[in-house]
Amino acid sequence: MQYFDDLIQLFNTKLEQEIMLIGNREPQNLYEPVVYTLNMGGKRIRPVLLLMAHNLYSPSFEEAFPAAFAIELFHNFTLLHDDIMDNADLRRNFQTVHKKFSPETAILSGDAMSILSYEYITKCKSKNYREIFELFTNTALKICEGQQFDMDFENRNDVTVLDYLKMISLKTAILLAASLKLGALTGNSPIKDAELLYEFGFNLGMAFQLQDDLLDTFGKTHEFGKNIGGDIVANKKTYLMLKSLELAKGEISLELNSLLSSTTINREEKIEKVKNIYSQLDVVSLSQQKMDEYYNMALSNLAELNINNEKKSNLLFVAKKMMNRKS
Amino acid sequence: MQYFDDLIQLFNTKLEQEIMLIGNREPQNLYEPVVYTLNMGGKRIRPVLLLMAHNLYSPSFEEAFPAAFAIELFHNFTLLHDDIMDNADLRRNFQTVHKKFSPETAILSGDAMSILSYEYITKCKSKNYREIFELFTNTALKICEGQQFDMDFENRNDVTVLDYLKMISLKTAILLAASLKLGALTGNSPIKDAELLYEFGFNLGMAFQLQDDLLDTFGKTHEFGKNIGGDIVANKKTYLMLKSLELAKGEISLELNSLLSSTTINREEKIEKVKNIYSQLDVVSLSQQKMDEYYNMALSNLAELNINNEKKSNLLFVAKKMMNRKS
Repeated sequence: MQYFDDLIQLFNTKLEQEIMLIGNREPQNLYEPVVYTLNMGGKRIRPVLLLMAHNLYSPSFEEAFPAAFAIELFHNFTLLHDDIMDNADLRRNFQTVHKKFSPETAILSGDAMSILSYEYITKCKSKNYREIFELFTNTALKICEGQQFDMDFENRNDVTVLDYLKMISLKTAILLAASLKLGALTGNSPIKDAELLYEFGFNLGMAFQLQDDLLDTFGKTHEFGKNIGGDIVANKKTYLMLKSLELAKGEISLELNSLLSSTTINREEKIEKVKNIYSQLDVVSLSQQKMDEYYNMALSNLAELNINNEKKSNLLFVAKKMMNRKS
Repeated sequence: MQYFDDLIQLFNTKLEQEIMLIGNREPQNLYEPVVYTLNMGGKRIRPVLLLMAHNLYSPSFEEAFPAAFAIELFHNFTLLHDDIMDNADLRRNFQTVHKKFSPETAILSGDAMSILSYEYITKCKSKNYREIFELFTNTALKICEGQQFDMDFENRNDVTVLDYLKMISLKTAILLAASLKLGALTGNSPIKDAELLYEFGFNLGMAFQLQDDLLDTFGKTHEFGKNIGGDIVANKKTYLMLKSLELAKGEISLELNSLLSSTTINREEKIEKVKNIYSQLDVVSLSQQKMDEYYNMALSNLAELNINNEKKSNLLFVAKKMMNRKS
C-alpha cells in the first residue's frame, strides 16, 4: 500500500537526518555505536504505526516525529543491551555493538541511547505532554520487567502459559500499543480513541508474538530470516512448549522431559522429535487459536474506533501485513 | 548544623519508604539489586542540596521529594553501571551488583533504575515541569558523555588540563549544579535564582573534585576512605598529573614518562617518586589555586543570591563541609 510505503520512507528520511546530528555529537566513542545501531535498519514498524495513529487526527506529521524517534531509539537501545546479556554475535546480520566495539562501550552507549530517547520526548510540543512522558516511562519500565521475566523463565520449572502471555505482553505487545497511543496523543485525539488504539496495538502485538513463535518452529528459514527451531534447541518456554508440558501425559511427557534435559542429542533430531510431540498434542492449533483470538480482538478494537473506513483501512493493512494475512 | 542533619534524616526516612515500595515490585530479580544498591547508603549530598534549594522558596518539602529521589536514583544507577565497566569488586564496602548478582542483572537492573528515576520526575507537580524534565535529561546525557571522556582519556596521550576540567565538569559538577537548580525549580524560585544556584553547585562541584584528586594522593587513608595513591598507580590523568606533564622538562620529564610506562615498578615506590615530582614542580599549589578559584566563584554566586543571610548560611555550611573548611 502506497500510504504505508510512503510513511516508511518519510520516517527513514527524517531519521537519517537525526542520525547525522547524533553522529556529530562528542565524544565520538559514545555516539558512534548509537549511529551504528540505528544504521542497522529494521522494519520501523513502531514509529510508522505512531505516525499513522497521529495522522488520523492531524494532517501534519511534524508534531509526531520526536515521539516516533523516541520509540525507535528506545526499542534499539533495548536490543543493544539484550544482545550483551544474551552474548549475541549478530543483529540484523551486523556484528553486535559489544562485539564490534566493547562490552563497556555497549553498556554506556546503550545508556546514552536510552536517555537520547527521552531527549526526543522532551521535544514533544503537544498539550498532552505530561501524559506522553508518563506513558513512555511506564512502557519503558515494563519492557525491562518483561526482559527480566524472560531471563527468569530459563531457570524456572513452574512457568505457566499465563506467565508466558504476561511476559510477551510486557516484552513485545505494550511497545506496539504505546506507539499507537503516543501517535494519538501527539495528534490530540479524543481520549477514548487513544485507549482503543492502545488496545488495538496490544492485541496485534500479542498475535504477532504468538505467530513469531510459531514461525520459529514451523516457518521457512528464507522467510523467517533466522534459523528454524532455535526456540526448541534453546529450551525456550514458548506457548507451544508450555502447552505441551501442560497436556503431555505418560510416555509423551517422559519423552518431552528427556528431550528438554538431554545435553547430547543432535540439534536436528531434537527439533524433529519436539515438533512431532507438538503435532501429537495438537498444540499448534491451540497456539493458532490463541493468536486468532488476539487478532480478532484487534479487529474489534479497530471496528469500534470512530473514524472513517478509509482511515481504518490503513491500520488494517499494517495488521494484515504483520500477520502475513491476505484477509 | 542541625538543619543539615535534619534534612539528611528527613530524606533518608522518605527514601526508606520508597525503597520498600520498589522492593515490592515484580519481578523481584529486577528490583532486588536496585534496593540493594540504594541500601548501600551514601552521603545523600545531592538530594539534600536539592531540598535546601527548594526550601529557600517553599516551606513544605513535599513537592521536592520526587525530584530528590530521581537525582539519588540516577546517581546510583551511574555508579552501578560504572562498576561493571571498571570491573570493580566493592562499592561502599559492599560487593558490587555485578559481582553479587550477575553482569546481566547489573545491566538490566541499572536500566530499570535509570527509568525509575524518570518515573519520579513524572511525579513532579510544579508548573516548571517541562523545564525540570529537560534539565534532568540534559544532565543525564552529559554525565554519560563525561564517563566516556574519562574512559577515552586512558588511551589518549594528548589530554590537556582543559580536557580534564571539561571531563570533571560533566562527570561531577553538573549533577550537583542540577540538583540545586531542580530544587529551585520545584520551589518555583525566580529564574535568576535558579541560574545562580546552578552556578553555585557547578563551581562547588569543580572545587570538590579537584580536592578529591588531591586527597587521593596526599590524604590520609582513614579520612579519605580509599587507598591513597590509587590515581598514581592507575596512571589517572588528573589535574596534578596533566599539569606535571605540561611543566616537566629535561630529566624530570624523562623520569615522569618512565614512571608512567613502567610495568614492573613497585606500587609504593611509584607513588613516592611521582609525589616527589609533584613537589618539585609545585603542581600541588597550582591545583589548590584552581580549587580555590572555583570555591571562591561558588561563594560569589552565593553572595549574589537575593535571599536573606540566614538562609544563605545553610548553603555555606554545606559548601564548607564538602570542602572540609572551617572558614
